[in-house]
Amino acid sequence: MTYCVALRLRDGLVMLSDTRTNAGVDNIATFSKMRVVEMPGERMIALMTSGNLAVTQAVVNHVTEGFNRPSSGKVESLVTAPDMFHAAEVVGEAVREVFGAHGATMEAQNIKFEASILLGGQIAGGPMRLFEIYAAGNFIEASEDTPFLQIGEHKYGKPILDRAVSYDMQLYDAIKLVLVSMDSTLRSNLTVGLPIDLLVYKKDEFKTDIRRRLGEDDPYFRHIREDWSTALREAYLRMPRPDWAK
Amino acid sequence: MTYCVALRLRDGLVMLSDTRTNAGVDNIATFSKMRVVEMPGERMIALMTSGNLAVTQAVVNHVTEGFNRPSSGKVESLVTAPDMFHAAEVVGEAVREVFGAHGATMEAQNIKFEASILLGGQIAGGPMRLFEIYAAGNFIEASEDTPFLQIGEHKYGKPILDRAVSYDMQLYDAIKLVLVSMDSTLRSNLTVGLPIDLLVYKKDEFKTDIRRRLGEDDPYFRHIREDWSTALREAYLRMPRPDWAK
Repeated sequence: MTYCVALRLRDGLVMLSDTRTNAGVDNIATFSKMRVVEMPGERMIALMTSGNLAVTQAVVNHVTEGFNRPSSGKVESLVTAPDMFHAAEVVGEAVREVFGAHGATMEAQNIKFEASILLGGQIAGGPMRLFEIYAAGNFIEASEDTPFLQIGEHKYGKPILDRAVSYDMQLYDAIKLVLVSMDSTLRSNLTVGLPIDLLVYKKDEFKTDIRRRLGEDDPYFRHIREDWSTALREAYLRMPRPDWAK
Repeated sequence: MTYCVALRLRDGLVMLSDTRTNAGVDNIATFSKMRVVEMPGERMIALMTSGNLAVTQAVVNHVTEGFNRPSSGKVESLVTAPDMFHAAEVVGEAVREVFGAHGATMEAQNIKFEASILLGGQIAGGPMRLFEIYAAGNFIEASEDTPFLQIGEHKYGKPILDRAVSYDMQLYDAIKLVLVSMDSTLRSNLTVGLPIDLLVYKKDEFKTDIRRRLGEDDPYFRHIREDWSTALREAYLRMPRPDWAK
């Protein structure tokens, strides 16, 4: 399993992924699920992936090294894409390419073709955008109304985002929210695991602002995990009891 | 879908259920999922159910009106059970009885036999207990380490319980936590719906302390929904940013 979350805020992007992969609970490993294509001053594109690891690694290889796109007849990649919408199309077509190559065999062996990808970034001349690409290769985009997207085990970490994320919030404050959202997930699903990979991008900078891996011993993440529980307990104690239960 | 949550704390029980049932998203209805068997001064037993409504209603009928238990050869019910463990066995056997009557036909029609039941209460002479009964009729019990049990759509509402519930907390403060947990679920899953049914039982009282239905317009529940979001926003803003993102 996996948990990845990305926010597209007014001032930038915040992206966070876990690193656990598993085939059953007795076969786990650590793989980064975040890949960054960066040409400072020109483009910053980050991918986070969830699903079958053989599928998502094949897709990431295609879109970072380039593959022959059937629809254009040209070798394209996230390095050659002229804008973010085109980049999302390249990723979607790479997913369909991998499905074409392996989908039938996987189905014959009762293995589900699963892939969900979050693609965020900005290419000079265009706006910063955030997409979620499905296993069919089609995709949706985050909006001001719903500025966050999640893939993988998304339920435990969603309530805090529903209640506290806003498009206009401070970029660095949003780091705290995605860490709390990840912590909620880590506590409940053993197949989502540390360390976690964080990326922050500031709009119009065309380079990553923060890239950081946080593990069990990271003092700030430990602080967030402990203090958030304390803050919640204090918050509910401060709320008044109902009149009918005093 | 359904969301029901029950806490067994040092001083009593807090139980909360939604009332939505649905067959697809275009066929929804309101049914209470909470049933109480109360003989003031002698026993207070509450059931909350999740799963196929025809199955769970059949089980509730069996255990409230009495049915011929194959294992004892006697007509038994939640009214006749001598203690809470026996009550859980009665419910479990009722589930198997319904499975015996309808399981094969349901399977032939590709309808899943689904039933999860939370059973909490106390019978004079014995301790207050809380059980979760599965579709197979077997069951588990809440403990001091894990004083809450959930059935139905449990993921959205779990993080707040994980972080804030403790066995020793004040009974009436726990009302706030189950309402927040329910609100997190209502926000994310359309098939969990208002109104909601709340029950509070104080240990050794052998009668319900609070039974209350809360709807969209209930002022206290509205207050909780709005103030909790505000409290969370204030809490995350108060937490310090990391040194590497100032």
